[in-house]
Amino acid sequence: MVRKTRPEPGDPAAGNGILSRRLFLEGTIVVGATGAGLSRGSAEPLTVQPWMKVPGRGFEGYGQPSPFESKVVKVFPPPPNPAGVGASRTPLHMLEGMITPSGLHFERSHSGVPEIDPAQHRLLIHGLVKRPLVFTVEALSRYPMQSRIAFIECGGNSQALNAPQAQPLNVAAIHGLLGCAEWTGVRFSTLLDEAGIEPEARWVIAEGADAAAMSRSIPLTKAMDDALVCLYQNGERVRPSNGYPVRLLLPGFEGNMNVKWLRRLKLIAGPAMTKDETSKYTILLKDEKAWQFVFPIEVKSVITRPSPGLALRGPGFYEISGLAWSGNGSIRQVDVSADGGRSWAPAALQGPILPKAPVRFRAAWQWNGGPAVLQSRATDDTGMVQPTRAQFADERGLRGVYHYNAIASWRIDEMGEASNVYA
Amino acid sequence: MVRKTRPEPGDPAAGNGILSRRLFLEGTIVVGATGAGLSRGSAEPLTVQPWMKVPGRGFEGYGQPSPFESKVVKVFPPPPNPAGVGASRTPLHMLEGMITPSGLHFERSHSGVPEIDPAQHRLLIHGLVKRPLVFTVEALSRYPMQSRIAFIECGGNSQALNAPQAQPLNVAAIHGLLGCAEWTGVRFSTLLDEAGIEPEARWVIAEGADAAAMSRSIPLTKAMDDALVCLYQNGERVRPSNGYPVRLLLPGFEGNMNVKWLRRLKLIAGPAMTKDETSKYTILLKDEKAWQFVFPIEVKSVITRPSPGLALRGPGFYEISGLAWSGNGSIRQVDVSADGGRSWAPAALQGPILPKAPVRFRAAWQWNGGPAVLQSRATDDTGMVQPTRAQFADERGLRGVYHYNAIASWRIDEMGEASNVYA
Repeated sequence: MVRKTRPEPGDPAAGNGILSRRLFLEGTIVVGATGAGLSRGSAEPLTVQPWMKVPGRGFEGYGQPSPFESKVVKVFPPPPNPAGVGASRTPLHMLEGMITPSGLHFERSHSGVPEIDPAQHRLLIHGLVKRPLVFTVEALSRYPMQSRIAFIECGGNSQALNAPQAQPLNVAAIHGLLGCAEWTGVRFSTLLDEAGIEPEARWVIAEGADAAAMSRSIPLTKAMDDALVCLYQNGERVRPSNGYPVRLLLPGFEGNMNVKWLRRLKLIAGPAMTKDETSKYTILLKDEKAWQFVFPIEVKSVITRPSPGLALRGPGFYEISGLAWSGNGSIRQVDVSADGGRSWAPAALQGPILPKAPVRFRAAWQWNGGPAVLQSRATDDTGMVQPTRAQFADERGLRGVYHYNAIASWRIDEMGEASNVYA
Repeated sequence: MVRKTRPEPGDPAAGNGILSRRLFLEGTIVVGATGAGLSRGSAEPLTVQPWMKVPGRGFEGYGQPSPFESKVVKVFPPPPNPAGVGASRTPLHMLEGMITPSGLHFERSHSGVPEIDPAQHRLLIHGLVKRPLVFTVEALSRYPMQSRIAFIECGGNSQALNAPQAQPLNVAAIHGLLGCAEWTGVRFSTLLDEAGIEPEARWVIAEGADAAAMSRSIPLTKAMDDALVCLYQNGERVRPSNGYPVRLLLPGFEGNMNVKWLRRLKLIAGPAMTKDETSKYTILLKDEKAWQFVFPIEVKSVITRPSPGLALRGPGFYEISGLAWSGNGSIRQVDVSADGGRSWAPAALQGPILPKAPVRFRAAWQWNGGPAVLQSRATDDTGMVQPTRAQFADERGLRGVYHYNAIASWRIDEMGEASNVYA
């Protein structure tokens, strides 16, 4: 009987160059990126660049990114619709970590971004409550608050992967309707306790103060569980494109239910069947039926680097980095493959691992210069595993536009270019 | 013998109106902020504001805060020195949660903010290494990365509290040299492993690419422990005022050691005694002596709300909210007092509680309209407790400008105005 020895960190952990995640967990040496700009130092001093010869610029009240990062912006098509109807997408392939900068958090608007005066804005709680209440923004600010780091993903994210042929798109274009922030606000349940809930109440209509009056029906159980009426996003007041001055956060639920510019919460006995939940946001199945009121985002992951537009510069070591998330709970594991799913190895997960928050995963890859297909596959703590595209198509078909969460694939060619493929 | 019964959440937990933190932990009803803008709803519909009558604005590549939040900016004095020498301060009293928006993260510059072309920037590792190495920014980007949420605090933060009389200043002016971000970069140890460390190396000089060539000596043990060579701040590339394109992060160490615009890391046998660590950044004691090389920020906390400039609007319920942090580890407990330290009750701590990261604490307070002195007192997981001002003065004296971490006090007067006091 052969005694199994523990692999060394530099040993392969799966086919086509995937290395052990112990490289990350143990902080072991990783072979350098020689040939990609790293060079041996010499006795020559470093060049003294012009910016070291004169004082730099002074202070500014609200800082901005470097002008050299001006290409790192949200992407959106030229408007064929009235201004502001549509979506702008987060350039996930240019970002790192778990937090999305507020300036780059995707947005989905049904009638543009209203410019709301917070002194004039009101939030009404009414319907099946004992005491209808109207809150100013200042009154809301006096309640006990809670903060949580949470993702928001549009239910329609990744719908490009329903197309019969893989489209030549990048991460932002396919998966960019995803963002994450530290949200702070008042628990929905605190406000409902204040209003008093009538026994027959089972649902809540949440309505936005945009011109579309975006409205969704929310189960009262969710409102009482972990929903927040948010005033802050990443430390400062919520950004206009994300609902200033007040937005709803329903951790893990599809994006549009997290109603922006929140003005009204009406407790009702059954779902309202608003225009926004009958004309849209149902999951069309292959057998002409549709699922309604499927709210939590299913377990999902995306490799953000390498990805289309970020070419590899010759064979050698690369970090595979990406995000995994689940609306049903925490991420338990992410596996990566460099051979299109024939072999898998677990990636390192970056803590803190929080429920209904994205997790950054990292894997070490020694690219040999040959073709490769990179994939990631997430598992959440309910045991749900991302399906393959074939499994997803088999269950739901590919006619829908919402809740696509199958394993995605990037092909790396011999030139180091990455492209979207079905594998 | 009287059997002790468990207090109800609404019961007092300490003098002068501090309520039990179970109000937060158990999500129990908290009495509403009636009188502060909350009103009973009526049969009248909500006003339809102008912004609901026309489509809102369209998309923008990089979003900005609402124009209604234009007063939420960093604060800095008019420049008596050459541009950019000094500090800008974070308006902590306007913020919530744990993350500081990158645009509002404090900065301390010794010669302004250089505008660095990342394609031209280089990082040299040399001195007592086997292989001196020069990295481009792109080469650095290819190494395995790590993300962590960490505070950075200027060693000189809160120095206004050394003054013999309490000055009429607000949170930003006293405590605003504190920020927190999710930082992502390459472990310093990974780069040092790549260069190879000579046995006699014990320290590292880190040098910035600003015109001051800010330089500090760092123990090699810290470099090998948890230091990061950072490329990303809150998801996007580091902001210029915080070190673009590369800054050092030494979690828990005083701010200026986290060298910005990092260009050079030289391994040496002993500390370099650079101008920046001999002319400044020593801790002056009361007996004419000074401590040198005291690096970790000691346990500390600050109440951000209520605080000067944020007047209370009549007696009633208020949330006391603030931040606690320690450069030596995690926050274990924060106590709050409304009677100037005569009685204390534990505050609720907002997770995730991470080492060398700020923790948001919250306490419930029923203000009776009389005078009050609010204080917070943090304890870290090494057992260190914030000293009173008297204890701090007794140990160190009040002649220094660095590492002031004593308990701070806000007095609330009968009008609800808050002011900085010594208590």
